[in-house]
Amino acid sequence: MTDQTSMDLSTKYRSGANGTTEGRSSTVSTDDELLDIGDGRMEALGNWADLEEMEPKYSSSSNLMDTLEDLPSGIGQYEDFHTIDWLRDIARDRMRHRHITKKRQEGCWEKVLSAHDAWSGWVCVLLVGVAAGLCAGIIDIGATWMSDLKEGICKEAFWLNKEQCCWSANDTTYDDEGCSQWNTWSEILGAQTGKKAAAGGYIVKYLLYVLWAVVFAMLASMFVHSFAPYACGSGIPEIKTILSGFIIRGYLGKWTLLTKSVGMMLAVSAGLSLGKEGPFVHVAACCGNIFSYLFPKYGSNEAKKREILSAAAAAGVSVAFGAPIGGVLFSLEEVSYYFPLKTLWRSFFCALAAAFVLRSINPFGNDHLVMFYVEYNEPWYLQELIPFIFLGALGGLYGSFFNKMNIAWCRYRKNSKLGQYPIVEVLGVTLVTAILSYPNKYTRMNTSELIRQLFSRCGAEDKTMLCDYNRNSTSLSSYTSSTVAGDEVYTALWMLFLGLLFKGLITIFTFGIKVPSGLFIPSMAVGAIVGRIVGIGMEQLVVRNHDNPFFQNMCQSKQFCTITPGLYAMVGAAAALGGVTRMTVSLVVIMFELTGGLQYIVPLMLAVMTSKWVGDALGKDGIYDAHIALNGYPYLDSKKEFTHTTIAADVMRPRRNDPPLCVITQDSMTVEEVEAIFRDTSHNGFPVVLSSESQYLVGFVLRRDLMLAIANARKNQEGVVSNSIVYFSSQVPNNPNDPAPLKLRKILDMAPITITDQTPMETVVEMFRKLGLRQTLVTHNGRLLGIITKKDVLRHVAQLGNQDPESILFN
Amino acid sequence: MTDQTSMDLSTKYRSGANGTTEGRSSTVSTDDELLDIGDGRMEALGNWADLEEMEPKYSSSSNLMDTLEDLPSGIGQYEDFHTIDWLRDIARDRMRHRHITKKRQEGCWEKVLSAHDAWSGWVCVLLVGVAAGLCAGIIDIGATWMSDLKEGICKEAFWLNKEQCCWSANDTTYDDEGCSQWNTWSEILGAQTGKKAAAGGYIVKYLLYVLWAVVFAMLASMFVHSFAPYACGSGIPEIKTILSGFIIRGYLGKWTLLTKSVGMMLAVSAGLSLGKEGPFVHVAACCGNIFSYLFPKYGSNEAKKREILSAAAAAGVSVAFGAPIGGVLFSLEEVSYYFPLKTLWRSFFCALAAAFVLRSINPFGNDHLVMFYVEYNEPWYLQELIPFIFLGALGGLYGSFFNKMNIAWCRYRKNSKLGQYPIVEVLGVTLVTAILSYPNKYTRMNTSELIRQLFSRCGAEDKTMLCDYNRNSTSLSSYTSSTVAGDEVYTALWMLFLGLLFKGLITIFTFGIKVPSGLFIPSMAVGAIVGRIVGIGMEQLVVRNHDNPFFQNMCQSKQFCTITPGLYAMVGAAAALGGVTRMTVSLVVIMFELTGGLQYIVPLMLAVMTSKWVGDALGKDGIYDAHIALNGYPYLDSKKEFTHTTIAADVMRPRRNDPPLCVITQDSMTVEEVEAIFRDTSHNGFPVVLSSESQYLVGFVLRRDLMLAIANARKNQEGVVSNSIVYFSSQVPNNPNDPAPLKLRKILDMAPITITDQTPMETVVEMFRKLGLRQTLVTHNGRLLGIITKKDVLRHVAQLGNQDPESILFN
Repeated sequence: MTDQTSMDLSTKYRSGANGTTEGRSSTVSTDDELLDIGDGRMEALGNWADLEEMEPKYSSSSNLMDTLEDLPSGIGQYEDFHTIDWLRDIARDRMRHRHITKKRQEGCWEKVLSAHDAWSGWVCVLLVGVAAGLCAGIIDIGATWMSDLKEGICKEAFWLNKEQCCWSANDTTYDDEGCSQWNTWSEILGAQTGKKAAAGGYIVKYLLYVLWAVVFAMLASMFVHSFAPYACGSGIPEIKTILSGFIIRGYLGKWTLLTKSVGMMLAVSAGLSLGKEGPFVHVAACCGNIFSYLFPKYGSNEAKKREILSAAAAAGVSVAFGAPIGGVLFSLEEVSYYFPLKTLWRSFFCALAAAFVLRSINPFGNDHLVMFYVEYNEPWYLQELIPFIFLGALGGLYGSFFNKMNIAWCRYRKNSKLGQYPIVEVLGVTLVTAILSYPNKYTRMNTSELIRQLFSRCGAEDKTMLCDYNRNSTSLSSYTSSTVAGDEVYTALWMLFLGLLFKGLITIFTFGIKVPSGLFIPSMAVGAIVGRIVGIGMEQLVVRNHDNPFFQNMCQSKQFCTITPGLYAMVGAAAALGGVTRMTVSLVVIMFELTGGLQYIVPLMLAVMTSKWVGDALGKDGIYDAHIALNGYPYLDSKKEFTHTTIAADVMRPRRNDPPLCVITQDSMTVEEVEAIFRDTSHNGFPVVLSSESQYLVGFVLRRDLMLAIANARKNQEGVVSNSIVYFSSQVPNNPNDPAPLKLRKILDMAPITITDQTPMETVVEMFRKLGLRQTLVTHNGRLLGIITKKDVLRHVAQLGNQDPESILFN
Repeated sequence: MTDQTSMDLSTKYRSGANGTTEGRSSTVSTDDELLDIGDGRMEALGNWADLEEMEPKYSSSSNLMDTLEDLPSGIGQYEDFHTIDWLRDIARDRMRHRHITKKRQEGCWEKVLSAHDAWSGWVCVLLVGVAAGLCAGIIDIGATWMSDLKEGICKEAFWLNKEQCCWSANDTTYDDEGCSQWNTWSEILGAQTGKKAAAGGYIVKYLLYVLWAVVFAMLASMFVHSFAPYACGSGIPEIKTILSGFIIRGYLGKWTLLTKSVGMMLAVSAGLSLGKEGPFVHVAACCGNIFSYLFPKYGSNEAKKREILSAAAAAGVSVAFGAPIGGVLFSLEEVSYYFPLKTLWRSFFCALAAAFVLRSINPFGNDHLVMFYVEYNEPWYLQELIPFIFLGALGGLYGSFFNKMNIAWCRYRKNSKLGQYPIVEVLGVTLVTAILSYPNKYTRMNTSELIRQLFSRCGAEDKTMLCDYNRNSTSLSSYTSSTVAGDEVYTALWMLFLGLLFKGLITIFTFGIKVPSGLFIPSMAVGAIVGRIVGIGMEQLVVRNHDNPFFQNMCQSKQFCTITPGLYAMVGAAAALGGVTRMTVSLVVIMFELTGGLQYIVPLMLAVMTSKWVGDALGKDGIYDAHIALNGYPYLDSKKEFTHTTIAADVMRPRRNDPPLCVITQDSMTVEEVEAIFRDTSHNGFPVVLSSESQYLVGFVLRRDLMLAIANARKNQEGVVSNSIVYFSSQVPNNPNDPAPLKLRKILDMAPITITDQTPMETVVEMFRKLGLRQTLVTHNGRLLGIITKKDVLRHVAQLGNQDPESILFN
């Protein structure tokens, strides 16, 4: 049997695409009484959670069905874990649009409906943007509060976080000592005074820190495990796959949204080495999916829905970094597949709305959307490009090291017993993280806060260790210039170095555990530490050699050199993130929006480009593409060029020695014969030919449509029996002796995309990518020879990349 | 005869695509002795100017030809005014790439060549960026100097402009009076003292201003007329057409570059209501084209060359507005057609390099790339969204009014005698502009300078009329807040209003005259004037009603309200420009890069969106698309959705009553018969079929390739005579009695893109757009029925849009 558009694979997929969670579901099932059905749980859960929201509403889209000539309902929908047919979906939408435009003349109400339809895209992205902004605000506030909960609690109002608590008490400083309202756990447990007591207090704080971390992490992983297994990880690889035209029901449902939001707060608060910026994209995409069901135009058309999802992804990054333009470019560069100009505009609008809402919520109290917003004014010098390029190369090195290690560890997890104990793994990682990170103040603090400190200039009011410079004058201007560093700076450097080792390693084991986890923030932290270290080194080098002609233009006088170590930290962060994700333009724009200074684009761009080039030289894939490959998602990467010389005849099914292609003739098969084909094969669709001898192609019919039509006719149409002949032709002979014929021309796609057997595969791949095909028929001199499905193409690409084609698609 | 891929159209095109200049060439030929060949001049000029640079270098691309199986040279090139075949060009490039990769193993030199090939894209865009930055710097400096020349000259160093002149003399103010080195013409001509003399001096200045303007304008139009007729206009419509896959030889050649650069300086200096920002895109694209010939990978492959051109367009906007990100988005949103991610990265790199070079040149001496860079810090209030939306609506109204009027005037010019006197028209417009603009100081000044003044806040040091506020205190902080306006502000408002009327009207007649002219700056000036007027109105309204609860949050006290009229000017400028060009995201980003303040994105976005919606409601096309339609360029707009229900059978040639399609059989036609087809038809290509009875499609052969191959065989191949049979099949019978067969399978495209006759035209249009097809063959049940070329599609789109299909393509 040929493997043409095979349908039985859907069950394989069902367990396959859930690869990241499959190991667990069979073992840790006792703590979950909601749905205890063993291996099949995931699907059941998916179906259950999304019955209302994921199944398209036939009733509300009944006017669509009118235009589709009263076909039985359900035609034009997709099964779970199937590939969508973009051309067909977009054609369906145009048909719907024409129907509405035609009806507009009929009356006032139809005019209103038509206007509603025209505006619904904008309204939908506005709603999605507002929702994404709200979600981000709530998550930011919740995560801050819970993070502070690890250290203490506000005496009079437990719902306030540390900063708000101190603020409400009108204290001037936010240190543990200076804030009277804020009680650390050791204070509450009564261990305050005396030197010995202080040591005891430290131990109490330490233990409670670890305890809270473990509790938070356990809650997060249990939530994820019980309510929405899809909520783990960053979600970006899956969203890329979905946007490329794949159906994963429930991945963007409301339970996933809720679980991911709560799980993210808990996981961040647990002090794990992960960020909430990547998952924001998933959360925003969930909002996009949910709101698209308010508008049948988008909810019941998978291709159109992806326009909303692209915009939602932009909104996700917009709220994650306060960078609406960067978000749009991220969606364009990294996530989206089909990105028409209209989507560009709507993405921008959506990203803007989200940023506006988040700014109104103002979760960090600094009038900016992120904790680590900075503003530099100092110039940079041409000589500094050398360390910037060096940072870029380091970022590329780290990126490919991290990707290789992380993928190796994830593969080990999948193939070993470890994968069967996800909650235990989460607890283990949390325990190690909490125990090792508490003693070092730079790893103990919130990672966003660490990045903020590393990015910031040392202003007049800064008393942190990193800003302990030996300043001779106290004038304001001297604070912005570089001088000889004090001892505390060197202490801080050592602590940062230790923190770097710790963060660099623990992130490898953290990204991939079964809690919501992003790696923007940990990668940036690693890069920022390296950058700050290099920056301070450069600064001291210049300050000590300010007479050297090479450095002369950087120093006005002996005391006044303008080097900003914070800028190095930012460049380092961009380079590390670039090395891990291989983003370029969008990353630079995000960084640019974080600083608001156009002048740093050149350093950032150089570092990010170097990082990408170095990274690409050591390993082609970014972390998201690597995870897509690891999990075997059917993703046809539009970035990679297909450079082989194979032709369509090499790829099509049936192969040379296979049985011939399973086809339906246009006017000679009975209902019974067609039903026999359904039983014998599992193909998703069948070519219709003139006659089985000539094999000249007439059209293509989908299995799902054909089954529905036959079932419908058997039930409702008089005279249709097993002996009735199925006609796809326009002329149907009218013989009263024969059983009533079954006319199915209207479900026949008479314009299937065809190619010749000599077509180079690069053209075929291009057509699959750009037209969003699901399959194409292969002909030679007009005769049907075979079929190529998207999965055949993916298998072929994998094979040419020296990978096992089956492992690529179904692990 | 069917009109399939018709070639005879090229001559029609030749005069047609030059629509903007054709009227002139037959009449004003006396002042041009270089090339006086009447109507055919343009082609001659184009060919002459570009013989060396535009004709691909066959010699340097000989290694490419090796991989193409030693085909005769010239195969794979295009005629002038023809459409390119993207799929084929990209396939050719991959073949070349594979060839180089294969050769890499052979030795060190091949490794170097391979590395050079891999990097050549980056090197090329770097060179293009640097060149674009240099050109922009030179043009900026030259235009400033020449503009000042209209008023006076530097006494001791004539090559300095006014600002540099005063600077060199260490004068503190740049006014006419305060600068000792700068001599106005009236001073030089000796009319200084006394009241009467002052009046005389004014008249002298006025006359000399007009005189200089006329001289500059005449020089500009004569340069354009004599050296490069393609240098007139903004060039963006033509670049859009070229990027969509059309060949206009000489449009991006070095003569065009030189003429456009010089002509731009002259035209701007003449004080005409035009800008140099649009033409910067053309200049950058010329650089892109010229440098692409250094790299055969790009120079000899039209599809690949367009990647460089897209990047160059981004660089053009980058230097025009100092907005690299905006430039990339402009290229993506407005100009480019085929924009893969790799091009995104390279465009960004190119735009950055250009901006970096221009900043190093620092033409305006303000460390920014544009004259009107501003920095705001004041917040905006929610109530202000009402005037912002109002400004957006005004911008949309103005935009569609301007577009309609301008197109009507251009159409009148084409169809009347006016078009035959282009230089006279330029002189007339210049005379009117100079006479009317001198008395009003806001229209007399450089338009960029006007925009700068309108955008700027009134700082403490500002003594301009627009900043004459009644301030009670002299503290610094009071200067940034709004108070009651003084009398001079009202005078300024009246002058601005008159200037608005003048600029709004004269621009309609200016855009389209035969000098290099952009309309970014004039549109922005119109919008900025309206914005500033509305802004001052709003400011005074709030100041006078600061107790009104609606305005209360905008004023801290009676004297301190924070309204920035400059922000209104900026919003107005964005709205007007948006109304004219219908740009959205890129425009907002450009404005955002001009201000460097993320916080103004919401007002800008709202205004630009309103402007686009209002504009679209009144007329669909932006000015560039309107000019494309006016000139009949074969541009298949990818922004407009095709919403009709026609199918391929309605569009294909031959039509129902036409003679059958002209085909070649694969193994039964003689050389003579094929040559007869060449004589009788003008098609660009011929389908090859199994036999003329069955009409089953085998492949497609290009006329050019077939002619070259036959001519080549007749010359070099023994035994090939008129009776030889042309074989496209793989089996060639070996009969010694027959004349030697001519085997041409290797020039046969055995994978032509085919569709069925039932394919909806929306799918066909989609395929043409996304795959960059030149033609597609139409089949029914495997039999060849007809052909659809890109021009057929364009004609069909025009027809459905109720336009005369022939007028669209060939006027």
